[in-house]
Amino acid sequence: MKVSRRALLRGAAGAVTLGKAAALEALQNPTDANSVASPGTVLGQRAPSEKPQRFRRPTGSSTPLQDLWGMITPSDLHFERHHAAVPRVDPNSYTLLIHGMVERPMVFTLADLKRFPSVSRICFLECSGNLNRTAPPETTAQQLAGLTSQSEWTGVALSTLFREAGVRRQATWFLAEGQDAALLARSIPVQKAYDDAMIVYAQNGEAIRPEQGYPARLLLPGWEGNSNVKWIRRIELSDGPFMTREETSKYTEPRADGKVRMFSFVMDARSIITSPSYPAKLARGWTEINGIAWSGYGKITRVDVSTDDGRTWTAARLQEPVLSKAHTRFRHLWNWTGNETIIMSRAVDETGYVQPTRAEFIRSRGVGSVPYHLNPITGWLVRNDGTVVYREESWG
Amino acid sequence: MKVSRRALLRGAAGAVTLGKAAALEALQNPTDANSVASPGTVLGQRAPSEKPQRFRRPTGSSTPLQDLWGMITPSDLHFERHHAAVPRVDPNSYTLLIHGMVERPMVFTLADLKRFPSVSRICFLECSGNLNRTAPPETTAQQLAGLTSQSEWTGVALSTLFREAGVRRQATWFLAEGQDAALLARSIPVQKAYDDAMIVYAQNGEAIRPEQGYPARLLLPGWEGNSNVKWIRRIELSDGPFMTREETSKYTEPRADGKVRMFSFVMDARSIITSPSYPAKLARGWTEINGIAWSGYGKITRVDVSTDDGRTWTAARLQEPVLSKAHTRFRHLWNWTGNETIIMSRAVDETGYVQPTRAEFIRSRGVGSVPYHLNPITGWLVRNDGTVVYREESWG
Repeated sequence: MKVSRRALLRGAAGAVTLGKAAALEALQNPTDANSVASPGTVLGQRAPSEKPQRFRRPTGSSTPLQDLWGMITPSDLHFERHHAAVPRVDPNSYTLLIHGMVERPMVFTLADLKRFPSVSRICFLECSGNLNRTAPPETTAQQLAGLTSQSEWTGVALSTLFREAGVRRQATWFLAEGQDAALLARSIPVQKAYDDAMIVYAQNGEAIRPEQGYPARLLLPGWEGNSNVKWIRRIELSDGPFMTREETSKYTEPRADGKVRMFSFVMDARSIITSPSYPAKLARGWTEINGIAWSGYGKITRVDVSTDDGRTWTAARLQEPVLSKAHTRFRHLWNWTGNETIIMSRAVDETGYVQPTRAEFIRSRGVGSVPYHLNPITGWLVRNDGTVVYREESWG
Repeated sequence: MKVSRRALLRGAAGAVTLGKAAALEALQNPTDANSVASPGTVLGQRAPSEKPQRFRRPTGSSTPLQDLWGMITPSDLHFERHHAAVPRVDPNSYTLLIHGMVERPMVFTLADLKRFPSVSRICFLECSGNLNRTAPPETTAQQLAGLTSQSEWTGVALSTLFREAGVRRQATWFLAEGQDAALLARSIPVQKAYDDAMIVYAQNGEAIRPEQGYPARLLLPGWEGNSNVKWIRRIELSDGPFMTREETSKYTEPRADGKVRMFSFVMDARSIITSPSYPAKLARGWTEINGIAWSGYGKITRVDVSTDDGRTWTAARLQEPVLSKAHTRFRHLWNWTGNETIIMSRAVDETGYVQPTRAEFIRSRGVGSVPYHLNPITGWLVRNDGTVVYREESWG
């Protein structure tokens, strides 16, 4: 979208033009008196007026999407979801056992893992239950869908460890078991290890945080959060899935035909506008609509934005680099004239998949009582007075 | 480099193979008793055993390069360099004045800046005086060259603001002035604004930190740190440079012919091995040599690694995505047989520039007493006992 100089000038509501004398007069010479922290400090702190926080829920906490820019989530704001508590794991006694259908059962210490060739990858991690279905208008993006975050992860390719242990040809699945009190365990196809699975020990440059699985977790790019087993202590190779609790009574989805969808690992394409969103208050004129889009199947190829409740759509700008299985920032310049309307976004990924409306989603899934893999388009209602609230929709 | 399974197996020194029964016996069922922090917390904390810290110096602090993986520097570990102290700037009264050779002198509040189209960019920021020339063997990468860090920055393109204010055609330079007690100011060619300069208000997803210029700083990708003026309060357009203290008595480099190099903005290509480096202790067998390479001129196209004091070189693997003007992680698998040797890395960028040896650097620059823009190849001495120390070299 091309915007004329004068249009944008009017858009920046508070910006004023003024004479040079007046401008310089307004500047006062600062002194050390109102300064702090010289010389340097060993760890930086946020500015006192900046207080981004995770939103606590009974089983974890969610990322303040409405407060963030870009594609990186600061590590201390990465969402958490626990099935028991966060275990304290001593990095010096930590081990990862790989056994079952392998030539050589092996135990790796953390130091062992760090000696292997490493790889880094920026990708999202999203809980499969990342949509609050009973959200009132006064709901933030964080409360609605803040169980998705993004980090640069570093570790060893799982395929490297599988070659070390000599995974047998008959092995088609592996069990990944965590060291938490829940002993959370999931069955994963071996093929994922040869695609892009990793055992990661670093996040955004440093050691991963306790609530992210310190000292090491499984990373399955694009796959539902719970399968990315944290505090991973054991991997067992087998010729079939293990049918654990987390893939039978949980993390399965009833379909319209009465059958149940299992092992629905991949997170479908999705997007959400994070600015403006509740509790923002919009001023008339030009403003930037922006948000994040992501897909567990690969790269985002397009994000459409509608500012008229879905009647018309315009392709948003995508921030480069667009990475596979990664939050991608989209941006759309919008001139709000003061009328009540609904704004929304729609993601398209490289497989051609288009994020569905809620009605389309319900038709295709026949949604039941299970809140997993819900990725419909969501909207924000912009009222005449500029207040922005979540647009409630029925689940049919 | 291709590594056989057996070779790597021997390399992972601590890894043991064992029978299935013994392996399972070693696993004990964890309980909530040794767990913490359930449910979630509003801000995550590092694991108690992980204590990365900046290294304090009289005028700032440096990044613990030897402790980091990947390409993102956590914001609280980003290096600092101050010319006075860190000013406390109230974001609600913050303004940026643009005046001088413009059609419309303008003042922008922080809210104004955030209404403009935004852009994000991952790039390094490096102090122009980023080499400790009197380093003893017991010197960490952080102490040697830790004044370089990398963030994902978000803000508004400076060209957008220049179009708003109507920068006149005669204007070829601008003054960027900070709000610190030093009123640090630099003259910048207007062309940089049309290339890629930004006014940034966000870093790694959140508001930039006080010591990085909160609430807004100038970002000049690839250019020496001090020109990326923090706490920026004033930009004045003119038809020539302003000849400030920071470009006359400071940040200029004497040449061999007696002349002085001024406005040497761009940081030349450079690299450093961060692992293994002091105080690491190496075990025999396969290990990964890794580090970072960067260039202010664009993308890194190759990093060579030598494990025999520069006699032979091998191209390292580069971690994708390789971004322009960004720290790029390089990795090289090495089988250390236990002999004393020197390891080093050499960066090449897309202009064809090759990072010089110290001797080449001194020959070309005729280095004097001024410690700016020093980017020679640096080495680490690996002793027979596996200890790794900085390899001192004379400055001639």
